[in-house]
Amino acid sequence: MEEIKLSEISAKSPKSVDKSEAKTKKKYNRNAIRELQTKLFAQKKYSLLVVLQGMDAAGKDGAVRETFKEISPSGICVTSFKKPTEVEMGHDFLWRVHKHVPAKGMISVFNRSHYEDVLIQRVHKWIDMETVHQRYEHINNFEKLLQDNGTIIIKCFLHKSKEEQLIQLNERKTELSKHWKHNPNDYKEREHWDEYMEAYEDVFKYCGPEIPWNIIPSDENWYKEYLLSEIVREKLESLDLEYPPLKE
Amino acid sequence: MEEIKLSEISAKSPKSVDKSEAKTKKKYNRNAIRELQTKLFAQKKYSLLVVLQGMDAAGKDGAVRETFKEISPSGICVTSFKKPTEVEMGHDFLWRVHKHVPAKGMISVFNRSHYEDVLIQRVHKWIDMETVHQRYEHINNFEKLLQDNGTIIIKCFLHKSKEEQLIQLNERKTELSKHWKHNPNDYKEREHWDEYMEAYEDVFKYCGPEIPWNIIPSDENWYKEYLLSEIVREKLESLDLEYPPLKE
Repeated sequence: MEEIKLSEISAKSPKSVDKSEAKTKKKYNRNAIRELQTKLFAQKKYSLLVVLQGMDAAGKDGAVRETFKEISPSGICVTSFKKPTEVEMGHDFLWRVHKHVPAKGMISVFNRSHYEDVLIQRVHKWIDMETVHQRYEHINNFEKLLQDNGTIIIKCFLHKSKEEQLIQLNERKTELSKHWKHNPNDYKEREHWDEYMEAYEDVFKYCGPEIPWNIIPSDENWYKEYLLSEIVREKLESLDLEYPPLKE
Repeated sequence: MEEIKLSEISAKSPKSVDKSEAKTKKKYNRNAIRELQTKLFAQKKYSLLVVLQGMDAAGKDGAVRETFKEISPSGICVTSFKKPTEVEMGHDFLWRVHKHVPAKGMISVFNRSHYEDVLIQRVHKWIDMETVHQRYEHINNFEKLLQDNGTIIIKCFLHKSKEEQLIQLNERKTELSKHWKHNPNDYKEREHWDEYMEAYEDVFKYCGPEIPWNIIPSDENWYKEYLLSEIVREKLESLDLEYPPLKE
């Protein structure tokens, strides 16, 4: 099992990719995704679950918008997982997540996900390492349950550098239209950067092989958006999506 | 792994148990269960899930009533799993079940359960045996997830003989107060009796060892009720249930 070291992966776009070409391709991709989604919806054989993880200000919301905005909202559901409520805390960590997995024909996007339960909870030592490893196993079993039911899972880590994150966080304080995103706590979480990277690397290792993670360099939005749209289009194209025949 | 053969287990009450003594004990048990449940609720360390399975007219509803009727309805939730809806069918078979597992401090009773997905669906060949075995694995993983979160699981099969079932089904046609329970389809399901017994025996085998099944002889209600109340009381008593100390 090859281990991923995030410090060895650049968060910048590769020189080989041209920005304006990538923007054109992104538009092509999201139109293709819209058409593929219509077949997915009509056929009701598969569903698609896109798991998006990343540090604060990694650009998860923008990635969702730019990849899926052509799709009718009837066919897609985005769930943002925040701090668990008291009711949710009364249950196993997958309880609140399971409710939101896609039905056949649907696309679900998780903006943060069940992986938070082995990331923030580990970094802050709210759970011990034995529990972390137990949860890896439960996550793998859970994702297998979904797969066996026809759910295609795409897992993405939006890889933004610590320097670029600071620029983004500061922008939230200087730009009126971004003030609402400012949260002083984000600066505190940033102090745990290295522990988060280590926790992510373990996630890629222990919850990786069966459904591998896509590491998406995210310092530049145009590249992040282009690459996510590529991944989603390619995955949907690899399925035998077709309109079902006329019922007799 | 010792295999259970239902044909070798009597559905009658054992001679060694006295009926009026059993009735007295049942009353003792359900009062004890009420007191234990109060601690369970206050402590919020554990939850209890009681899975009740059995053929039609095995007496599941009566078993629930006679074991749990002293408990405040705020602390217990009974879910009867019927034919899945179209929305439920769009998801994996555990999706509708996971929603109803008990939160910490609560008791949930499943009147039928996720096991129907490896019983009726197998008997009617709606799924193949590969899927049946895949589901056994998913069920075991799912129950482990709940256990790891402090859920105590009690699984019971109400073992009623084929002859006694016929008496009960016929009574539904002759007694006014039971007419509402009559369903002609129950007589059709009865024709698959042997296939159901075989499917149950496989459930005990493949979804047994970790959380073993209790086979409850159920031809006589008084014995069934007594035994279930014994099992539940003993399980709750085995936990370290205590009232939490006063918060400072």
